[in-house]
Amino acid sequence: MATKIAIQGIQGSFHHQVAQEYFGKEVAVDECLSFEELVSSLLSGESDQAVMAIENSIAGPIIPNYALIDKNNLHIIGEHYLDIQQNLMALKGQTIQDIEEVHSHPMALLQCMEFLKQYPHIKIVEDKDTAETARRIHEKQLKGIAAIASKVAAEMYDLEILAPEIQTINNNMTRFVIIDKKQSVLSTNEINRASIKFELDHKRGSLAAVLNVMSDCKLNLTKIQSLPKIETPWKYSFFVDVTFEKYEDYAKAKALIDIMAEYFKVLGEYKNAKP
Amino acid sequence: MATKIAIQGIQGSFHHQVAQEYFGKEVAVDECLSFEELVSSLLSGESDQAVMAIENSIAGPIIPNYALIDKNNLHIIGEHYLDIQQNLMALKGQTIQDIEEVHSHPMALLQCMEFLKQYPHIKIVEDKDTAETARRIHEKQLKGIAAIASKVAAEMYDLEILAPEIQTINNNMTRFVIIDKKQSVLSTNEINRASIKFELDHKRGSLAAVLNVMSDCKLNLTKIQSLPKIETPWKYSFFVDVTFEKYEDYAKAKALIDIMAEYFKVLGEYKNAKP
Repeated sequence: MATKIAIQGIQGSFHHQVAQEYFGKEVAVDECLSFEELVSSLLSGESDQAVMAIENSIAGPIIPNYALIDKNNLHIIGEHYLDIQQNLMALKGQTIQDIEEVHSHPMALLQCMEFLKQYPHIKIVEDKDTAETARRIHEKQLKGIAAIASKVAAEMYDLEILAPEIQTINNNMTRFVIIDKKQSVLSTNEINRASIKFELDHKRGSLAAVLNVMSDCKLNLTKIQSLPKIETPWKYSFFVDVTFEKYEDYAKAKALIDIMAEYFKVLGEYKNAKP
Repeated sequence: MATKIAIQGIQGSFHHQVAQEYFGKEVAVDECLSFEELVSSLLSGESDQAVMAIENSIAGPIIPNYALIDKNNLHIIGEHYLDIQQNLMALKGQTIQDIEEVHSHPMALLQCMEFLKQYPHIKIVEDKDTAETARRIHEKQLKGIAAIASKVAAEMYDLEILAPEIQTINNNMTRFVIIDKKQSVLSTNEINRASIKFELDHKRGSLAAVLNVMSDCKLNLTKIQSLPKIETPWKYSFFVDVTFEKYEDYAKAKALIDIMAEYFKVLGEYKNAKP
Protein backbone atom coordinates (compact mmCIF):
# COMPACT_ATOMS: atom_id res chain seq x y z
CA MET A 1 0.00 0.00 0.00
CA ALA A 2 1.29 3.47 -0.85
CA THR A 3 2.47 5.73 1.92
CA LYS A 4 -0.18 8.23 2.99
CA ILE A 5 0.83 11.66 4.30
CA ALA A 6 -1.35 13.72 6.63
CA ILE A 7 -1.50 17.42 5.72
CA GLN A 8 -3.16 20.39 7.38
CA GLY A 9 -5.78 21.78 5.03
CA ILE A 10 -7.14 20.45 1.77
CA GLN A 11 -5.34 19.54 -1.44
CA GLY A 12 -3.78 22.66 -2.91
CA SER A 13 -2.85 24.03 0.52
CA PHE A 14 0.73 25.02 1.36
CA HIS A 15 1.01 21.82 3.40
CA HIS A 16 0.08 19.90 0.25
CA GLN A 17 2.71 21.81 -1.71
CA VAL A 18 5.33 20.78 0.88
CA ALA A 19 4.16 17.15 0.74
CA GLN A 20 4.56 17.19 -3.05
CA GLU A 21 8.00 18.79 -2.94
CA TYR A 22 9.21 16.40 -0.24
CA PHE A 23 7.58 13.10 -1.24
CA GLY A 24 6.94 13.66 -4.96
CA LYS A 25 4.11 15.01 -7.07
CA GLU A 26 1.91 11.89 -6.76
CA VAL A 27 1.90 11.74 -2.96
CA ALA A 28 -1.33 10.40 -1.41
CA VAL A 29 -2.57 12.76 1.31
CA ASP A 30 -5.03 12.71 4.19
CA GLU A 31 -6.67 16.15 4.43
CA CYS A 32 -6.90 17.23 8.09
CA LEU A 33 -8.82 20.28 9.24
CA SER A 34 -6.60 21.02 12.25
CA PHE A 35 -3.18 20.11 13.62
CA GLU A 36 -4.86 17.99 16.32
CA GLU A 37 -6.65 16.02 13.58
CA LEU A 38 -3.33 15.64 11.75
CA VAL A 39 -1.74 14.08 14.83
CA SER A 40 -4.78 11.78 15.30
CA SER A 41 -4.44 10.65 11.68
CA LEU A 42 -0.85 9.68 12.38
CA LEU A 43 -1.53 8.01 15.74
CA SER A 44 -4.47 5.97 14.44
CA GLY A 45 -2.45 4.71 11.47
CA GLU A 46 -4.74 6.46 9.00
CA SER A 47 -1.57 8.09 7.65
CA ASP A 48 2.07 7.00 7.80
CA GLN A 49 3.74 10.36 8.19
CA ALA A 50 2.62 13.97 8.47
CA VAL A 51 3.73 17.42 7.30
CA MET A 52 3.48 20.12 9.97
CA ALA A 53 4.37 23.84 9.86
CA ILE A 54 6.64 24.57 12.82
CA GLU A 55 8.00 28.11 12.42
CA ASN A 56 7.70 31.10 10.20
CA SER A 57 10.23 33.83 9.49
CA ILE A 58 7.64 36.53 10.23
CA ALA A 59 5.44 35.14 12.99
CA GLY A 60 8.03 32.98 14.76
CA PRO A 61 7.60 29.48 16.20
CA ILE A 62 4.19 27.77 16.20
CA ILE A 63 4.31 26.89 19.87
CA PRO A 64 1.27 24.57 20.10
CA ASN A 65 2.80 22.34 17.39
CA TYR A 66 5.94 21.81 19.46
CA ALA A 67 3.66 20.75 22.32
CA LEU A 68 1.74 18.33 20.03
CA ILE A 69 4.96 16.61 18.92
CA ASP A 70 6.31 16.44 22.46
CA LYS A 71 3.11 15.32 24.20
CA ASN A 72 2.41 12.55 21.69
CA ASN A 73 6.04 11.36 21.59
CA LEU A 74 6.24 11.83 17.83
CA HIS A 75 9.54 12.02 15.98
CA ILE A 76 10.78 14.68 13.60
CA ILE A 77 12.32 12.74 10.72
CA GLY A 78 12.87 15.54 8.21
CA GLU A 79 12.31 19.20 7.43
CA HIS A 80 11.40 21.34 4.43
CA TYR A 81 11.38 25.09 3.84
CA LEU A 82 8.75 26.82 1.74
CA ASP A 83 8.82 30.43 0.66
CA ILE A 84 5.11 31.24 0.96
CA GLN A 85 3.98 32.83 -2.30
CA GLN A 86 0.46 33.96 -2.91
CA ASN A 87 -1.04 34.03 -6.40
CA LEU A 88 -4.22 35.55 -7.81
CA MET A 89 -6.15 32.91 -9.76
CA ALA A 90 -9.46 32.48 -11.55
CA LEU A 91 -11.18 30.29 -14.16
CA LYS A 92 -9.24 29.95 -17.38
CA GLY A 93 -9.96 32.69 -19.90
CA GLN A 94 -10.79 35.30 -17.27
CA THR A 95 -8.71 38.47 -17.10
CA ILE A 96 -8.10 40.69 -14.12
CA GLN A 97 -10.67 43.14 -15.56
CA ASP A 98 -13.35 40.41 -15.35
CA ILE A 99 -12.78 39.91 -11.64
CA GLU A 100 -15.37 41.49 -9.33
CA GLU A 101 -14.51 39.74 -6.06
CA VAL A 102 -11.46 38.15 -4.55
CA HIS A 103 -11.95 35.59 -1.78
CA SER A 104 -9.29 34.28 0.58
CA HIS A 105 -8.23 33.77 4.16
CA PRO A 106 -7.87 37.11 6.04
CA MET A 107 -4.13 36.52 6.54
CA ALA A 108 -3.54 35.91 2.82
CA LEU A 109 -5.61 38.98 1.93
CA LEU A 110 -3.59 41.06 4.37
CA GLN A 111 -0.33 39.81 2.86
CA CYS A 112 -1.50 40.98 -0.58
CA MET A 113 -3.12 44.31 0.37
CA GLU A 114 -0.60 46.46 -1.52
CA PHE A 115 -1.29 44.53 -4.72
CA LEU A 116 -5.08 44.64 -4.23
CA LYS A 117 -5.01 48.42 -3.72
CA GLN A 118 -4.12 48.75 -7.40
CA TYR A 119 -7.49 47.21 -8.32
CA PRO A 120 -10.12 49.18 -6.39
CA HIS A 121 -12.89 47.65 -8.55
CA ILE A 122 -12.27 44.25 -6.91
CA LYS A 123 -14.30 43.61 -3.76
CA ILE A 124 -12.38 41.80 -1.01
CA VAL A 125 -14.21 38.93 0.70
CA GLU A 126 -12.84 37.03 3.68
CA ASP A 127 -13.04 33.27 3.53
CA LYS A 128 -11.92 30.47 5.82
CA ASP A 129 -9.30 28.79 3.65
CA THR A 130 -7.10 29.75 0.69
CA ALA A 131 -7.24 26.43 -1.20
CA GLU A 132 -10.93 25.83 -0.52
CA THR A 133 -11.85 29.01 -2.36
CA ALA A 134 -9.89 27.81 -5.38
CA ARG A 135 -11.71 24.47 -5.22
CA ARG A 136 -15.10 26.17 -5.02
CA ILE A 137 -14.38 28.39 -8.05
CA HIS A 138 -13.50 25.23 -9.97
CA GLU A 139 -16.42 23.09 -8.77
CA LYS A 140 -19.08 25.75 -9.28
CA GLN A 141 -17.31 27.30 -12.30
CA LEU A 142 -17.65 30.72 -10.69
CA LYS A 143 -16.93 33.58 -13.08
CA GLY A 144 -15.86 37.03 -11.84
CA ILE A 145 -14.38 35.57 -8.66
CA ALA A 146 -10.67 35.14 -7.98
CA ALA A 147 -8.88 33.24 -5.22
CA ILE A 148 -5.56 34.01 -3.58
CA ALA A 149 -3.75 30.72 -3.00
CA SER A 150 -0.69 28.56 -3.75
CA LYS A 151 0.42 27.62 -7.25
CA VAL A 152 -0.39 23.99 -6.36
CA ALA A 153 -4.03 25.07 -5.82
CA ALA A 154 -4.06 26.62 -9.33
CA GLU A 155 -2.85 23.36 -10.88
CA MET A 156 -5.09 21.20 -8.74
CA TYR A 157 -8.29 23.13 -9.52
CA ASP A 158 -7.45 23.98 -13.11
CA LEU A 159 -7.31 27.72 -12.56
CA GLU A 160 -5.24 30.32 -14.35
CA ILE A 161 -2.78 32.45 -12.43
CA LEU A 162 -3.66 36.06 -13.31
CA ALA A 163 -0.88 37.53 -11.18
CA PRO A 164 1.89 35.49 -9.55
CA GLU A 165 3.66 36.25 -6.25
CA ILE A 166 1.46 39.12 -5.14
CA GLN A 167 2.42 39.13 -1.43
CA THR A 168 3.84 42.41 -0.14
CA ILE A 169 6.59 41.10 2.13
CA ASN A 170 8.87 38.65 0.46
CA ASN A 171 10.92 36.19 2.49
CA ASN A 172 7.85 34.79 4.22
CA MET A 173 9.72 31.53 4.70
CA THR A 174 8.01 28.75 6.60
CA ARG A 175 9.78 25.72 8.03
CA PHE A 176 7.80 22.48 7.99
CA VAL A 177 8.78 19.24 9.72
CA ILE A 178 7.99 15.71 8.66
CA ILE A 179 6.76 13.70 11.63
CA ASP A 180 6.34 10.01 12.26
CA LYS A 181 5.48 7.63 15.10
CA LYS A 182 8.88 6.00 14.58
CA GLN A 183 12.40 7.41 14.56
CA SER A 184 14.19 8.34 11.37
CA VAL A 185 15.69 5.40 9.46
CA LEU A 186 18.64 7.51 8.28
CA SER A 187 22.13 6.26 9.01
CA THR A 188 24.22 8.29 11.44
CA ASN A 189 26.38 9.70 8.65
CA GLU A 190 23.29 11.12 6.92
CA ILE A 191 22.06 12.83 10.10
CA ASN A 192 23.38 16.36 10.68
CA ARG A 193 20.58 18.06 12.58
CA ALA A 194 18.64 17.39 15.77
CA SER A 195 15.78 18.89 17.77
CA ILE A 196 16.08 18.33 21.50
CA LYS A 197 14.23 19.31 24.65
CA PHE A 198 15.61 19.59 28.16
CA GLU A 199 14.72 20.94 31.57
CA LEU A 200 17.23 22.44 33.98
CA ASP A 201 17.14 23.27 37.64
CA HIS A 202 17.04 26.95 38.47
CA LYS A 203 20.70 27.20 39.43
CA ARG A 204 22.37 30.24 37.92
CA GLY A 205 24.47 29.40 34.89
CA SER A 206 22.90 25.99 34.25
CA LEU A 207 21.84 26.94 30.70
CA ALA A 208 25.24 28.50 30.00
CA ALA A 209 26.88 25.22 31.14
CA VAL A 210 24.76 23.19 28.69
CA LEU A 211 25.49 25.61 25.83
CA ASN A 212 29.21 25.40 26.65
CA VAL A 213 29.03 21.62 26.28
CA MET A 214 27.28 22.03 22.92
CA SER A 215 29.90 24.49 21.75
CA ASP A 216 32.76 22.26 22.99
CA CYS A 217 31.21 19.34 21.08
CA LYS A 218 31.10 21.46 17.89
CA LEU A 219 27.32 21.75 17.72
CA ASN A 220 25.87 24.84 16.07
CA LEU A 221 22.80 26.12 17.82
CA THR A 222 20.23 27.26 15.25
CA LYS A 223 17.30 27.87 17.55
CA ILE A 224 16.57 28.13 21.26
CA GLN A 225 13.37 28.76 23.08
CA SER A 226 12.32 28.53 26.67
CA LEU A 227 8.74 27.38 27.06
CA PRO A 228 6.69 27.30 30.22
CA LYS A 229 5.91 23.86 31.63
CA ILE A 230 2.16 23.36 31.63
CA GLU A 231 0.79 22.73 35.13
CA THR A 232 4.03 24.09 36.63
CA PRO A 233 3.83 27.79 35.82
CA TRP A 234 7.13 29.58 35.25
CA LYS A 235 9.24 26.44 35.23
CA TYR A 236 10.78 26.30 31.80
CA SER A 237 11.70 23.67 29.28
CA PHE A 238 14.19 24.49 26.55
CA PHE A 239 13.62 23.53 22.94
CA VAL A 240 16.86 23.64 21.00
CA ASP A 241 17.81 22.86 17.40
CA VAL A 242 21.41 22.05 16.54
CA THR A 243 23.38 21.16 13.43
CA PHE A 244 26.68 19.26 13.35
CA GLU A 245 29.13 17.65 10.98
CA LYS A 246 29.85 14.43 12.82
CA TYR A 247 27.25 12.33 14.56
CA GLU A 248 29.86 11.27 17.15
CA ASP A 249 30.22 14.89 18.30
CA TYR A 250 26.47 15.12 18.73
CA ALA A 251 26.32 11.74 20.49
CA LYS A 252 28.93 12.95 22.98
CA ALA A 253 26.99 16.18 23.69
CA LYS A 254 23.81 14.15 24.08
CA ALA A 255 25.42 11.89 26.70
CA LEU A 256 26.69 14.92 28.65
CA ILE A 257 23.40 16.87 28.52
CA ASP A 258 21.53 13.76 29.60
CA ILE A 259 23.65 13.80 32.80
CA MET A 260 23.45 17.59 33.32
CA ALA A 261 19.73 18.13 32.68
CA GLU A 262 16.86 17.21 34.97
CA TYR A 263 15.04 15.89 31.92
CA PHE A 264 16.30 15.28 28.40
CA LYS A 265 14.52 14.11 25.27
CA VAL A 266 15.34 13.92 21.57
CA LEU A 267 12.43 15.14 19.41
CA GLY A 268 14.16 14.13 16.21
CA GLU A 269 17.45 13.45 14.44
CA TYR A 270 17.36 14.17 10.72
CA LYS A 271 18.97 15.75 7.72
CA ASN A 272 19.31 19.51 7.54
CA ALA A 273 17.44 21.17 4.66
CA LYS A 274 18.68 24.52 3.44
CA PRO A 275 16.06 27.27 3.42
CA MET B 1 -5.31 65.27 34.08
CA ALA B 2 -5.54 61.71 35.33
CA THR B 3 -3.30 59.06 33.78
CA LYS B 4 -5.07 57.07 31.09
CA ILE B 5 -4.15 53.42 30.48
CA ALA B 6 -4.67 51.67 27.15
CA ILE B 7 -6.09 48.15 27.48
CA GLN B 8 -6.82 45.47 24.91
CA GLY B 9 -10.55 44.77 24.92
CA ILE B 10 -13.40 46.56 26.63
CA GLN B 11 -13.93 47.32 30.31
CA GLY B 12 -14.33 44.06 32.19
CA SER B 13 -11.71 42.29 30.07
CA PHE B 14 -8.72 40.56 31.66
CA HIS B 15 -6.57 43.51 30.54
CA HIS B 16 -8.91 45.79 32.47
CA GLN B 17 -8.59 43.54 35.53
CA VAL B 18 -4.79 43.86 35.31
CA ALA B 19 -5.03 47.65 34.93
CA GLN B 20 -7.18 47.80 38.07
CA GLU B 21 -4.88 45.55 40.08
CA TYR B 22 -1.78 47.46 38.97
CA PHE B 23 -3.00 51.08 38.92
CA GLY B 24 -5.96 50.90 41.31
CA LYS B 25 -9.68 50.29 41.00
CA GLU B 26 -10.51 53.75 39.58
CA VAL B 27 -8.05 53.63 36.69
CA ALA B 28 -9.18 55.47 33.53
CA VAL B 29 -8.80 53.23 30.50
CA ASP B 30 -8.76 53.54 26.73
CA GLU B 31 -10.50 50.48 25.23
CA CYS B 32 -8.52 49.23 22.21
CA LEU B 33 -9.79 46.54 19.86
CA SER B 34 -6.36 45.17 18.93
CA PHE B 35 -2.77 45.29 20.15
CA GLU B 36 -1.87 47.51 17.17
CA GLU B 37 -4.56 49.97 18.27
CA LEU B 38 -3.22 49.81 21.82
CA VAL B 39 0.24 50.82 20.60
CA SER B 40 -1.26 53.63 18.48
CA SER B 41 -3.12 54.93 21.53
CA LEU B 42 0.19 55.13 23.38
CA LEU B 43 2.17 56.66 20.49
CA SER B 44 -0.46 59.31 19.76
CA GLY B 45 -0.61 60.36 23.41
CA GLU B 46 -4.25 59.27 23.70
CA SER B 47 -3.09 57.15 26.65
CA ASP B 48 -0.08 57.50 28.96
CA GLN B 49 0.76 53.85 29.47
CA ALA B 50 -0.59 50.53 28.27
CA VAL B 51 -1.19 47.02 29.63
CA MET B 52 -0.18 44.25 27.23
CA ALA B 53 -0.31 40.43 27.61
CA ILE B 54 3.13 39.05 26.76
CA GLU B 55 3.20 35.37 27.69
CA ASN B 56 0.97 32.65 28.97
CA SER B 57 1.87 29.55 30.94
CA ILE B 58 -0.09 27.36 28.50
CA ALA B 59 0.32 28.95 25.08
CA GLY B 60 3.79 30.44 25.55
CA PRO B 61 5.06 33.84 24.43
CA ILE B 62 2.85 36.18 22.37
CA ILE B 63 5.48 36.76 19.69
CA PRO B 64 3.83 39.61 17.76
CA ASN B 65 3.64 41.67 20.96
CA TYR B 66 7.41 41.44 21.43
CA ALA B 67 7.75 42.73 17.87
CA LEU B 68 5.34 45.62 18.56
CA ILE B 69 7.34 46.76 21.61
CA ASP B 70 10.65 46.40 19.77
CA LYS B 71 9.61 48.01 16.48
CA ASN B 72 8.03 51.04 18.16
CA ASN B 73 10.88 51.49 20.66
CA LEU B 74 8.52 51.26 23.61
CA HIS B 75 9.75 50.57 27.13
CA ILE B 76 8.62 47.88 29.54
CA ILE B 77 8.30 49.67 32.88
CA GLY B 78 6.54 47.01 34.93
CA GLU B 79 4.91 43.60 34.90
CA HIS B 80 1.91 41.90 36.45
CA TYR B 81 0.77 38.27 36.60
CA LEU B 82 -2.85 37.22 36.40
CA ASP B 83 -4.21 33.76 37.00
CA ILE B 84 -6.92 33.67 34.32
CA GLN B 85 -10.17 32.55 35.96
CA GLN B 86 -13.40 32.18 34.09
CA ASN B 87 -16.75 32.65 35.76
CA LEU B 88 -20.31 31.88 34.70
CA MET B 89 -22.48 34.98 35.16
CA ALA B 90 -26.01 36.19 34.43
CA LEU B 91 -28.53 38.85 35.48
CA LYS B 92 -29.09 39.00 39.22
CA GLY B 93 -31.80 36.65 40.49
CA GLN B 94 -31.22 34.08 37.74
CA THR B 95 -30.19 30.55 38.71
CA ILE B 96 -28.24 28.06 36.64
CA GLN B 97 -31.55 26.26 35.92
CA ASP B 98 -32.88 29.45 34.26
CA ILE B 99 -29.98 29.57 31.81
CA GLU B 100 -30.72 28.37 28.27
CA GLU B 101 -27.65 29.68 26.45
CA VAL B 102 -24.09 30.52 27.37
CA HIS B 103 -22.18 32.94 25.13
CA SER B 104 -18.44 33.54 25.12
CA HIS B 105 -15.23 33.58 23.11
CA PRO B 106 -14.43 30.11 21.66
CA MET B 107 -11.21 29.91 23.72
CA ALA B 108 -13.03 30.67 26.98
CA LEU B 109 -15.75 28.14 26.11
CA LEU B 110 -13.07 25.52 25.39
CA GLN B 111 -11.38 26.21 28.72
CA CYS B 112 -14.68 25.54 30.50
CA MET B 113 -15.94 22.54 28.51
CA GLU B 114 -15.70 20.07 31.39
CA PHE B 115 -17.89 22.31 33.53
CA LEU B 116 -20.40 22.91 30.72
CA LYS B 117 -20.77 19.16 30.10
CA GLN B 118 -22.53 18.92 33.46
CA TYR B 119 -25.33 21.14 32.11
CA PRO B 120 -26.42 19.61 28.81
CA HIS B 121 -29.56 21.79 28.79
CA ILE B 122 -27.42 24.89 28.19
CA LYS B 123 -26.76 25.71 24.54
CA ILE B 124 -23.21 26.90 23.80
CA VAL B 125 -22.92 29.95 21.53
CA GLU B 126 -19.61 31.34 20.27
CA ASP B 127 -19.12 35.08 20.55
CA LYS B 128 -16.26 37.42 19.73
CA ASP B 129 -15.38 38.68 23.20
CA THR B 130 -15.85 37.53 26.78
CA ALA B 131 -16.51 40.93 28.38
CA GLU B 132 -18.71 42.19 25.54
CA THR B 133 -21.20 39.40 26.14
CA ALA B 134 -21.43 40.40 29.78
CA ARG B 135 -22.03 44.01 28.74
CA ARG B 136 -24.76 42.99 26.28
CA ILE B 137 -26.60 40.90 28.91
CA HIS B 138 -26.56 43.95 31.18
CA GLU B 139 -27.54 46.53 28.56
CA LYS B 140 -30.38 44.51 27.05
CA GLN B 141 -31.29 42.85 30.37
CA LEU B 142 -31.19 39.46 28.66
CA LYS B 143 -32.74 36.66 30.71
CA GLY B 144 -31.83 33.01 30.21
CA ILE B 145 -28.40 33.92 28.85
CA ALA B 146 -25.12 33.58 30.71
CA ALA B 147 -21.65 34.88 29.89
CA ILE B 148 -18.28 33.36 30.71
CA ALA B 149 -15.93 36.19 31.68
CA SER B 150 -13.72 37.72 34.38
CA LYS B 151 -14.95 38.68 37.84
CA VAL B 152 -14.30 42.32 36.89
CA ALA B 153 -16.85 41.94 34.08
CA ALA B 154 -19.42 40.68 36.61
CA GLU B 155 -18.89 43.73 38.83
CA MET B 156 -18.77 46.14 35.91
CA TYR B 157 -22.00 44.94 34.32
CA ASP B 158 -23.85 44.20 37.56
CA LEU B 159 -24.13 40.46 36.93
CA GLU B 160 -24.24 37.65 39.44
CA ILE B 161 -21.60 34.94 39.37
CA LEU B 162 -23.52 31.65 39.21
CA ALA B 163 -20.37 29.52 39.25
CA PRO B 164 -16.88 30.86 39.94
CA GLU B 165 -13.59 29.53 38.51
CA ILE B 166 -15.07 27.09 36.05
CA GLN B 167 -11.98 26.64 33.83
CA THR B 168 -10.73 23.06 33.50
CA ILE B 169 -6.98 23.65 33.63
CA ASN B 170 -5.89 25.71 36.55
CA ASN B 171 -2.59 27.58 36.52
CA ASN B 172 -3.47 29.44 33.34
CA MET B 173 -1.13 32.23 34.42
CA THR B 174 -0.65 35.16 32.07
CA ARG B 175 2.17 37.66 32.32
CA PHE B 176 1.30 41.23 31.34
CA VAL B 177 3.76 44.08 30.87
CA ILE B 178 3.18 47.77 31.45
CA ILE B 179 4.56 49.75 28.54
CA ASP B 180 5.37 53.41 28.07
CA LYS B 181 7.03 55.69 25.52
CA LYS B 182 9.54 56.67 28.22
CA GLN B 183 11.86 54.61 30.39
CA SER B 184 10.96 53.58 33.91
CA VAL B 185 11.42 56.28 36.54
CA LEU B 186 12.44 53.73 39.18
CA SER B 187 15.75 54.25 40.95
CA THR B 188 18.47 51.68 40.29
CA ASN B 189 18.02 50.06 43.69
CA GLU B 190 14.34 49.39 42.94
CA ILE B 191 15.11 47.75 39.60
CA ASN B 192 15.78 43.99 39.73
CA ARG B 193 14.59 42.74 36.37
CA ALA B 194 15.33 43.56 32.74
CA SER B 195 14.20 42.50 29.26
CA ILE B 196 16.93 42.75 26.64
CA LYS B 197 17.37 41.92 22.97
CA PHE B 198 20.59 41.12 21.15
CA GLU B 199 21.87 39.75 17.87
CA LEU B 200 24.97 37.60 17.53
CA ASP B 201 27.10 36.54 14.62
CA HIS B 202 26.84 32.89 13.64
CA LYS B 203 30.10 31.85 15.25
CA ARG B 204 29.80 28.67 17.25
CA GLY B 205 29.56 29.31 20.98
CA SER B 206 28.66 33.00 20.73
CA LEU B 207 25.42 32.54 22.67
CA ALA B 208 27.19 30.40 25.28
CA ALA B 209 29.78 33.22 25.68
CA VAL B 210 27.03 35.79 26.35
CA LEU B 211 25.27 33.47 28.82
CA ASN B 212 28.59 32.89 30.59
CA VAL B 213 28.96 36.65 31.03
CA MET B 214 25.44 36.82 32.45
CA SER B 215 26.14 34.00 34.85
CA ASP B 216 29.48 35.53 35.91
CA CYS B 217 27.67 38.81 36.57
CA LYS B 218 25.16 36.98 38.78
CA LEU B 219 22.17 37.46 36.48
CA ASN B 220 19.44 34.83 36.59
CA LEU B 221 18.03 34.07 33.20
CA THR B 222 14.25 33.63 33.44
CA LYS B 223 13.43 33.45 29.74
CA ILE B 224 15.23 33.08 26.43
CA GLN B 225 13.89 32.95 22.93
CA SER B 226 15.46 33.14 19.53
CA LEU B 227 13.26 34.94 17.02
CA PRO B 228 13.76 35.21 13.29
CA LYS B 229 14.74 38.61 11.96
CA ILE B 230 12.05 39.82 9.60
CA GLU B 231 13.40 40.48 6.10
CA THR B 232 16.49 38.39 6.92
CA PRO B 233 15.12 34.86 7.14
CA TRP B 234 16.85 32.51 9.59
CA LYS B 235 19.01 35.18 11.15
CA TYR B 236 18.00 35.27 14.77
CA SER B 237 17.60 37.82 17.49
CA PHE B 238 17.55 36.73 21.10
CA PHE B 239 15.01 38.03 23.57
CA VAL B 240 16.15 37.43 27.12
CA ASP B 241 14.70 38.26 30.54
CA VAL B 242 16.97 38.41 33.56
CA THR B 243 16.61 39.09 37.27
CA PHE B 244 19.38 40.31 39.57
CA GLU B 245 19.99 41.56 43.10
CA LYS B 246 22.33 44.46 42.39
CA TYR B 247 21.92 46.91 39.54
CA GLU B 248 25.74 47.25 39.32
CA ASP B 249 26.03 43.55 38.41
CA TYR B 250 23.49 44.03 35.65
CA ALA B 251 25.16 47.24 34.46
CA LYS B 252 28.47 45.37 34.14
CA ALA B 253 26.85 42.55 32.13
CA LYS B 254 25.14 45.14 29.92
CA ALA B 255 28.46 46.84 29.12
CA LEU B 256 30.06 43.49 28.22
CA ILE B 257 27.16 42.23 26.08
CA ASP B 258 27.06 45.56 24.28
CA ILE B 259 30.68 44.88 23.18
CA MET B 260 30.13 41.18 22.38
CA ALA B 261 26.86 41.44 20.45
CA GLU B 262 26.37 42.74 16.93
CA TYR B 263 23.31 44.60 18.19
CA PHE B 264 22.10 45.19 21.73
CA LYS B 265 19.01 46.90 23.07
CA VAL B 266 17.27 47.20 26.43
CA LEU B 267 13.49 46.71 26.14
CA GLY B 268 12.92 47.60 29.76
CA GLU B 269 14.36 47.75 33.28
CA TYR B 270 11.76 47.31 36.00
CA LYS B 271 10.72 45.66 39.22
CA ASN B 272 10.12 41.92 39.30
CA ALA B 273 6.54 40.86 40.16
CA LYS B 274 6.02 37.42 41.66
CA PRO B 275 3.53 35.28 39.79
